[in-house]
Amino acid sequence: MDHTYAVILAAGQGTRMKSKLYKVLHPVCGMPMVEHVTGNIHQLGVEKIVTIVGHGAEKVKDQLGDMSEYALQEEQLGTAHAVQQAAPLIEGKAGTTIVVCGDTPLIRAETMQSLIDHHKENNAKATILTAIAEDPTGYGRIIRGAEGSVEKIVEQKDASTEEQIVNEINTGTYCFDNEALFEALKNVSNDNVQGEYYLPDVIEILQKQGEIVAAYATDSFEETLGVNDRVALSQAETFLRRRITEQHMRAGVSIIDPATAYISAQAKIGADTVIHPNVTIEGDTVIGEDCVITSNTRIVSSTIGDRTEIRSSEVYDSTIGNDTAVGPFAHIRPQSALGNEVKIGNFVEVKKAELGTGSKVSHLSYIGDALVGSGVNIGCGTITVNYDGKNKHLTTIEDDSFIGCNSNLIAPVTIGKGSYVAAGSTISKNVPDDALAIGRARQENKEGYASKLNRK
Amino acid sequence: MDHTYAVILAAGQGTRMKSKLYKVLHPVCGMPMVEHVTGNIHQLGVEKIVTIVGHGAEKVKDQLGDMSEYALQEEQLGTAHAVQQAAPLIEGKAGTTIVVCGDTPLIRAETMQSLIDHHKENNAKATILTAIAEDPTGYGRIIRGAEGSVEKIVEQKDASTEEQIVNEINTGTYCFDNEALFEALKNVSNDNVQGEYYLPDVIEILQKQGEIVAAYATDSFEETLGVNDRVALSQAETFLRRRITEQHMRAGVSIIDPATAYISAQAKIGADTVIHPNVTIEGDTVIGEDCVITSNTRIVSSTIGDRTEIRSSEVYDSTIGNDTAVGPFAHIRPQSALGNEVKIGNFVEVKKAELGTGSKVSHLSYIGDALVGSGVNIGCGTITVNYDGKNKHLTTIEDDSFIGCNSNLIAPVTIGKGSYVAAGSTISKNVPDDALAIGRARQENKEGYASKLNRK
Amino acid sequence: MDHTYAVILAAGQGTRMKSKLYKVLHPVCGMPMVEHVTGNIHQLGVEKIVTIVGHGAEKVKDQLGDMSEYALQEEQLGTAHAVQQAAPLIEGKAGTTIVVCGDTPLIRAETMQSLIDHHKENNAKATILTAIAEDPTGYGRIIRGAEGSVEKIVEQKDASTEEQIVNEINTGTYCFDNEALFEALKNVSNDNVQGEYYLPDVIEILQKQGEIVAAYATDSFEETLGVNDRVALSQAETFLRRRITEQHMRAGVSIIDPATAYISAQAKIGADTVIHPNVTIEGDTVIGEDCVITSNTRIVSSTIGDRTEIRSSEVYDSTIGNDTAVGPFAHIRPQSALGNEVKIGNFVEVKKAELGTGSKVSHLSYIGDALVGSGVNIGCGTITVNYDGKNKHLTTIEDDSFIGCNSNLIAPVTIGKGSYVAAGSTISKNVPDDALAIGRARQENKEGYASKLNRK
Repeated sequence: MDHTYAVILAAGQGTRMKSKLYKVLHPVCGMPMVEHVTGNIHQLGVEKIVTIVGHGAEKVKDQLGDMSEYALQEEQLGTAHAVQQAAPLIEGKAGTTIVVCGDTPLIRAETMQSLIDHHKENNAKATILTAIAEDPTGYGRIIRGAEGSVEKIVEQKDASTEEQIVNEINTGTYCFDNEALFEALKNVSNDNVQGEYYLPDVIEILQKQGEIVAAYATDSFEETLGVNDRVALSQAETFLRRRITEQHMRAGVSIIDPATAYISAQAKIGADTVIHPNVTIEGDTVIGEDCVITSNTRIVSSTIGDRTEIRSSEVYDSTIGNDTAVGPFAHIRPQSALGNEVKIGNFVEVKKAELGTGSKVSHLSYIGDALVGSGVNIGCGTITVNYDGKNKHLTTIEDDSFIGCNSNLIAPVTIGKGSYVAAGSTISKNVPDDALAIGRARQENKEGYASKLNRK
Repeated sequence: MDHTYAVILAAGQGTRMKSKLYKVLHPVCGMPMVEHVTGNIHQLGVEKIVTIVGHGAEKVKDQLGDMSEYALQEEQLGTAHAVQQAAPLIEGKAGTTIVVCGDTPLIRAETMQSLIDHHKENNAKATILTAIAEDPTGYGRIIRGAEGSVEKIVEQKDASTEEQIVNEINTGTYCFDNEALFEALKNVSNDNVQGEYYLPDVIEILQKQGEIVAAYATDSFEETLGVNDRVALSQAETFLRRRITEQHMRAGVSIIDPATAYISAQAKIGADTVIHPNVTIEGDTVIGEDCVITSNTRIVSSTIGDRTEIRSSEVYDSTIGNDTAVGPFAHIRPQSALGNEVKIGNFVEVKKAELGTGSKVSHLSYIGDALVGSGVNIGCGTITVNYDGKNKHLTTIEDDSFIGCNSNLIAPVTIGKGSYVAAGSTISKNVPDDALAIGRARQENKEGYASKLNRK
Repeated sequence: MDHTYAVILAAGQGTRMKSKLYKVLHPVCGMPMVEHVTGNIHQLGVEKIVTIVGHGAEKVKDQLGDMSEYALQEEQLGTAHAVQQAAPLIEGKAGTTIVVCGDTPLIRAETMQSLIDHHKENNAKATILTAIAEDPTGYGRIIRGAEGSVEKIVEQKDASTEEQIVNEINTGTYCFDNEALFEALKNVSNDNVQGEYYLPDVIEILQKQGEIVAAYATDSFEETLGVNDRVALSQAETFLRRRITEQHMRAGVSIIDPATAYISAQAKIGADTVIHPNVTIEGDTVIGEDCVITSNTRIVSSTIGDRTEIRSSEVYDSTIGNDTAVGPFAHIRPQSALGNEVKIGNFVEVKKAELGTGSKVSHLSYIGDALVGSGVNIGCGTITVNYDGKNKHLTTIEDDSFIGCNSNLIAPVTIGKGSYVAAGSTISKNVPDDALAIGRARQENKEGYASKLNRK
């Protein structure tokens, strides 16, 4: 049997982020970095993931939940010390252990798998994930021996002139023989300027023992980006955004400007849907086929049917059917359910409301805490008066009714099937089916009176 | 006399687009790819354009109309077979034929003209449009002879090591002596792995016959991009967007962020107009001089005068005068006509309405199916009640009248010149000139009663 | 003592801008180019800044005010002639003079200081600011002598083949010994094709006199960009935008997409505030810590507290407190002051109004010219009727009152403390404390009447 383990280093504070939020919890495309890492590792089907937590330990554990087991690094004494904390959970087990930093959200599962495969094919005790940097300044260089095996990792400050021009760099991601790893960790010392226990020292120890140390070079430098400050965070976001949009485009989604399509990693979008520039799609949103989502739309954790058009609107935690039109300038708040062929027009707010097939709210209305049937036409300026200053109440509007403009429907109230509310009415009592409800003052014209108002 | 013909290859399905829409109909900057190609060729003043249609033939023909003649390729048996379909229309005629793929929307007329000129200057029977690729992998390489003439085109799979480093590539656009082309086509065979008739074989045939085969290298690789999937589609969009915005900037338009200015190829914009980031201008929109168009504005097929400011608004199929202010958050729907010095403020919808000089609708109103004179002030929350559940009716508001806030104007209705509608009135009868119209209930204060309402 | 002077060349028309606005007044990130230059020079602590004005002289002087002294160049006879105009103000003074073009807004004070330091260290009479260009075509090349000193500047048209491949270019920014500069200027002739007096001739004159001419190469070519047309203007904007966003990110602000964060040079933003894509922050806006500013928001010259969320809204010249929520789709107009824990919801306009702690205007309202106390709930559709067609009047809404939906508050009017206005009321008289105010018609249901309306 073939056992694989993973250790995620997630104990750092991340001083350069200048943040109250712990580094690995900073989001990239809407998901904390460490959750990207854990999710990617999950795809490998490893036997056990151990996340080393320290700063913000509780918050990291809350975030990842049972996606991982945890080991606490109480003091941050270096990366080797961090891995050492996993000993109670995996030390001495036969198998392979991949060690990944919690601040490298872009390393794909495929790349990790290739690293592991390379490690095994070479019978190595340690394999380093490397990349080719255009400008390697600042990175540890990989010095390869004649036959391609790794001779040593040289840090920037220790690099000779020839070593400095080497552009294969250490990404900080490693694969180890698990037993060899924990044996070697015992021999790592903190006899250096920082007084820290460094994980790369394990490489040197294994090498001196004559073990095989290999390196697997990914062809994507950008994938190995480690996020240490918010500039790198924004770069990671840009790279991941490009990866996500490319996947959607290859699957048949038209994205007018991928640079300004902000789509979460979890979102699903059907073929022949068109995403205009500057659209934000967050959470586990599902959008059907043949939809059009125009600029400035934000959709969060919602489900949209087929052939639906959302223009310049915001939709939160709601479901929207097929052939429905929303916007421009509409706001669909949580727990709303719009049916098929519904129309929600401009300056309309829907909150915790259901609308049946073919119903329309075309302009300047607030429909909150409401059950609206099918075939209902709600006129411009209609307000469900759902709040009396103390409680929220329900408005029920039954099928095929017509609500005149600028009506107030004072909840709790029911507007019966096929009924008609005259424009400008304030409705505080139920309206029977097929009734006309009216509640407004009669118009009076005072001739010649306008001039007396003495307007300029 | 000098005859020039064009053949556009537009018969493919475009499987990699993963779309119900035929490949060449996918839009770039709002216009189908094949229409870009046809439009660019039109600028050459060719005698006849033959578009080879196949998949989606009817839709392509509907799109291009009489911009082109058509030949149907019933089965897609290769590019040479496609060109062969044009034989009934142009075979045997003396002259020059340019062959362009319908999925290369970026090749400019100037470049095609240079190709044709180069072809003629060299007395060539065939001339290939080539480009210099940074990474030529996957493209057919142009192998030039000593004196610069084309020796052969080598496909990627057949290229020797030396040939692979050649970075001059075949763009798939050609110029032919028309008679020689159709003669050579007869000798193209489908004796290859795919069993297809390939157009580049014509080149080889002509060469073996000792004819001159030339190549014209454009200095813009990006211009020759062929769109085979939606990633390339988005790249074409980006390139064309840059070309369009540069033209406007060089002509005196300020574009704060050209990367997020989405302007159609047909739009016209006057000097000293400022386009803020994330603005979309579609169709044959015309914008005057000294305008300011702020972020998040979308203007479709509309005409805007001079010194007008549109802020964060959407305008469709309408005309807007000079010195007018729209937005933020306004929605001008089709068939609206705003005069000069008009003000349309926030959360205002205008639909199929005319507004005269100096009239104002400053907030939260719906003006639909209306004729509004000049000097009219329409108060906040005013609604033209244009729909009775069955028909739409007209509201007429005459010059210099004042409509109080939250009024309902139940159409059909006329508000006379210089009249005044009191705030909160529902108006269902005409208001005479200079009259004050009022239709609202009288206020009653119930002292000490608020506490009885038992609100928290 | 060590005297430093600065001369800014700002007299040009800028024909290639194709603008009615004088070149140096075109804004980059919201500030005229010449003001960037002057501001950067100010940081050097120079003794005197002389701006050479010509085209648009009065407008340039209006813009810069007392940031500079001025010299008028009546005719534009070349750069040497321009500098000569400063003679009455600085000629003959011992010290160092930096000459900077008014169209190079990106050269940082640090770079100018390095230029000056280099100049002094080398005891030079003239020092050229140079840069390394990827493509030097069109620029004057710096030909260095054996020991690194400048031998000559060769213009493109005069450059030999070897000189053409030199990629160190003249940026047009210089440092001079002030006395030597004005002595040399006397010897500059206009004996050339354009008939102009060129400043680089001073370099040649000094060299022929055996004086030391040095060059200081900045490592940032982009920083030296001169803006001659609107394409370059948009590039300058992009570069400066990147510089500004990087500063904020390094200081602890999260910017999801720096490419679409349009932040003025003067704005201040607190740590852990998150800026979503496509946000515009103009003028001297101050935003506190832990705020969230979502897409499509524009904030101009406003002050925002901590932990406040602004969603898809526009805010102008206003102050907003802590823990307040605005938007989506809200418009806060000038002279508004929102307190702490205030909520302004969708489709709400606030203008010249104050709102106290915890007050809410959640939907579709216009609050203009109003004083709103604390703990007030303003229902959906409420309108302060502040304008009678002639004057604007004040609405006062006292603490803990409740305004029902769709109410009209006809100003001047006071709604007393703890009072309650019933939905649908038009309020024209003051409401006493704790009173219930109601002004609406009674509802009538006409059974079976709806069908008689003969709707489809």
